Amino acid sequence: MKIEIFDCTLREGVQSQGISMSNEDRLKIAKKLDELGISYIEAGNPASNPKETAFFKELKSENFINSKIVAFGSTRRAHTEVSEDEGLKNLIAANTDIVTVFGKSWDFHVTDILSAELYENLNMIYDTVCYLKENGKEVFYDAEHFFDGCKHNKEYALKTLEAAYFGGASRIILCDTNGAAFPDEVEKIVAELAPKYKNMLGIHCHDDCGMAVANSISAVRGGAVMIQGTLTGCGERCGNANLATVIGNLQTKMEHNVIGENLKNLTSACVYVSDVANQTLSPNAPYVGRNAFAHKGGMHIDAVCKEPSSFEHIPPETVGNKRRILVSEVSGKSAVYSKIQRLFPEIKKSDPSVAKITRRFKELEHLGYQFEAAEGSAELVIRKIIGKYSTVFTLNMFRILSEQDSSRSSNLTTALISISVDGKSEITAVEGNGPVNALDKALRKAAEVFYPQIKNVKLLDYKVRVIDSNATASKVRVLIESADGKERWTTVGVSDDVIKASWIALVDSIELKIIKDSEKEKQKIE
Amino acid sequence: MKIEIFDCTLREGVQSQGISMSNEDRLKIAKKLDELGISYIEAGNPASNPKETAFFKELKSENFINSKIVAFGSTRRAHTEVSEDEGLKNLIAANTDIVTVFGKSWDFHVTDILSAELYENLNMIYDTVCYLKENGKEVFYDAEHFFDGCKHNKEYALKTLEAAYFGGASRIILCDTNGAAFPDEVEKIVAELAPKYKNMLGIHCHDDCGMAVANSISAVRGGAVMIQGTLTGCGERCGNANLATVIGNLQTKMEHNVIGENLKNLTSACVYVSDVANQTLSPNAPYVGRNAFAHKGGMHIDAVCKEPSSFEHIPPETVGNKRRILVSEVSGKSAVYSKIQRLFPEIKKSDPSVAKITRRFKELEHLGYQFEAAEGSAELVIRKIIGKYSTVFTLNMFRILSEQDSSRSSNLTTALISISVDGKSEITAVEGNGPVNALDKALRKAAEVFYPQIKNVKLLDYKVRVIDSNATASKVRVLIESADGKERWTTVGVSDDVIKASWIALVDSIELKIIKDSEKEKQKIE
Repeated sequence: MKIEIFDCTLREGVQSQGISMSNEDRLKIAKKLDELGISYIEAGNPASNPKETAFFKELKSENFINSKIVAFGSTRRAHTEVSEDEGLKNLIAANTDIVTVFGKSWDFHVTDILSAELYENLNMIYDTVCYLKENGKEVFYDAEHFFDGCKHNKEYALKTLEAAYFGGASRIILCDTNGAAFPDEVEKIVAELAPKYKNMLGIHCHDDCGMAVANSISAVRGGAVMIQGTLTGCGERCGNANLATVIGNLQTKMEHNVIGENLKNLTSACVYVSDVANQTLSPNAPYVGRNAFAHKGGMHIDAVCKEPSSFEHIPPETVGNKRRILVSEVSGKSAVYSKIQRLFPEIKKSDPSVAKITRRFKELEHLGYQFEAAEGSAELVIRKIIGKYSTVFTLNMFRILSEQDSSRSSNLTTALISISVDGKSEITAVEGNGPVNALDKALRKAAEVFYPQIKNVKLLDYKVRVIDSNATASKVRVLIESADGKERWTTVGVSDDVIKASWIALVDSIELKIIKDSEKEKQKIE
Repeated sequence: MKIEIFDCTLREGVQSQGISMSNEDRLKIAKKLDELGISYIEAGNPASNPKETAFFKELKSENFINSKIVAFGSTRRAHTEVSEDEGLKNLIAANTDIVTVFGKSWDFHVTDILSAELYENLNMIYDTVCYLKENGKEVFYDAEHFFDGCKHNKEYALKTLEAAYFGGASRIILCDTNGAAFPDEVEKIVAELAPKYKNMLGIHCHDDCGMAVANSISAVRGGAVMIQGTLTGCGERCGNANLATVIGNLQTKMEHNVIGENLKNLTSACVYVSDVANQTLSPNAPYVGRNAFAHKGGMHIDAVCKEPSSFEHIPPETVGNKRRILVSEVSGKSAVYSKIQRLFPEIKKSDPSVAKITRRFKELEHLGYQFEAAEGSAELVIRKIIGKYSTVFTLNMFRILSEQDSSRSSNLTTALISISVDGKSEITAVEGNGPVNALDKALRKAAEVFYPQIKNVKLLDYKVRVIDSNATASKVRVLIESADGKERWTTVGVSDDVIKASWIALVDSIELKIIKDSEKEKQKIE
């Protein structure tokens, strides 16, 4: 049986700290998950608030190709009629073909958290599943805290599964709600239950012990047919099982075909979902992170240039990711050349510019530059030497004034700038939050007069690092990440003055954008 | 046998993207790892550059209590004499009792990357280990790509281990260099080798499949006695095995006592190491992340308030972390109290100031302050509330002007400041390297007029960290480390303006020095 992937981003993912999404954002994510070939999308808990109800209506009018939409809710309350349970009414009203209901499988939760009798909890599970089936739903049962339950009262934990089974659930999902289970334990229990619940078992893991992915894979080895998680791993506390990693593992290491050809869109889907959720995709994320195929150590780079599989477990293209050769003090000429090659394939290794570029990188690194995270500036270094560069503006002057006095709670910072392009000059002034922000705003305000396209450029990130510890007179390295809606690039500046360092990185960012845009224009005309 | 923890942060960790540390920073990390009770610290590769050689000299003059320092290098080059190998000369010159040498265990790497004969590689391993033993070293052998090697040519992979064994290696570390192994596979191979290499096997995993922690734990189940990784999980590509997670799992789930009582310092050690490396500790990191015990979902919060174990796999205090209730903050009063007690033992836990201080820390943390690495500022927060503080000067105003024009290669920055002490005021001006340096110099020049003792105060370190990524208008956190020849203290400031944030931290630094000095003077007189 094909392993089913069940994504909880829109329900449990929004419970992570710092995530809060509009229904519009959630719809975008649902569509992307569908496009990627995810089997099920848990869209929300319709009982929790009116925004959820509205969202299920919206979803109903959309056409999903690969994914089935699932509504999430809990078993009925203790000692009430199913037909009078508000939660279940909302769940039915969500109008999905499939619903997931979660119930208690750990006796301690029944007695101490719900304050219900153990037998009543079994009734609650059975009644709820039956009732939802009678109302035409396919029902998935989430056995909350199943693994903790097994440790404390296995007999009872197993009875809760039976209650769901006899009620008519089509999937029984074993949840490691607190994230404390280990792979060997998961595999053993799943293997024990799989013959009884044939092609019905699912797994739902949390990462509190760093084991969510390993546990999910172990469950498949034991006989589970569904893995629940979130595409990027977001979720309460340490997160849910990271489905991108799970999918990568299943498809490239275990020959379980879960999303087929779409595997090559895995990286872009993760970047998209993180962007929409306003989260940063971890650069170290397996398969899809920016660093997943980045090489810095000199020996590693030499080996990867000879034979990529020497330090890469799969070709990065398999999952739509890219190899990155980080130029750093530990790397030599072949690393530099492979970087040149990727940008300008026409340059031969024997070209004298290669040695010049290598030398220039070394000089700059000696001054404190680092290009591994500043590919934009690295490209400019190369362009300057191979003659694919021209100055886009000249600075006449800037002045930044920061003032603080006892009557003011915050500083007042103003920047004044004058630049020239082709003999015409532009002078302008702005207020900012601190000197760097003021300078950034002033430069862009002035440059926009000549280059309106930089209005689309957004600064995404700004990082300052002191290089040598010599306190406030130390050299600093500034990294700036910019984006124009299509591409992202990072530039770097180094100086003993944070303003000067920021200026260098800002200028690189804008120059690169303008130079590349004008090249594209030329190509169009040709 | 006690499981040994082997940390590679200072060698392999610096190969992660964006990490670049001064030797001073690396020494700080080494001391923290020692304090935490880590068994081995791999400090660097002495053959790679002169900075490394200098670092090993520095380490030699330090006194480590729990940790042994290890130098890292490779086997000799093909077809050369061990005694003439430059790398081995450097390795011996590093002057450590223990060395790790890595060698090739995957036949393909020998033939295609090293371009050596398979038998010659066995000689290289054997000769190198023998030679280092003859030179008085204890030798650990890192079997690079061991698991990939086993998949392609197991017989050969096993022979490489034997070469190291017969050469006299005391530990044989099985490396999953490309991060492609799975837990069941690791456990099986380790269990197969453990009887032969009794109490000698180690494991070194990478996280390319999200399995580094699970694989490390599986190796222990199979009979490994050493786990290699990095405390915070940093390392090439997707990172090394996260040792904080490994330690948490071993000690709270498997009853392997690896760092004993120090477990309660695990979180603060991880925060410290990340800060020094200028990396962000992942908020979702198991055990030590800010969100590891954070509860947002309503039902979860209710249950956790009734009974924490309902949604927490361990009590957060076990690892020195804190529960965070994201809707209504509940106090971490006892943690704050232990901080107060250390400084002012006369304050009782029932004292109303304790609750006030706790509240104040929470407010400041909400604004982006972090006191883990800023004990000086934490002390001032406490002093202000318990009445052991008085203003040492008042600011009348400062103005900072940064100027750049086309005729100058660097900026000119000037600062003007006026402060008052006891009704007398002092105005002064200085030139500096950038705005923060200028402000620092100006403040000290003015304050020295009233407090000559601050002439001895040196600023040792200055770090800027962007808290929320909103480019150049982001909030920044500035950390300043000061010393007066006897003591060191660190202070912190937060603002959306780097100058304001630096000002706050500078003022804290100087105030703390003056207040403590005057207390000491009083005690002398009494």
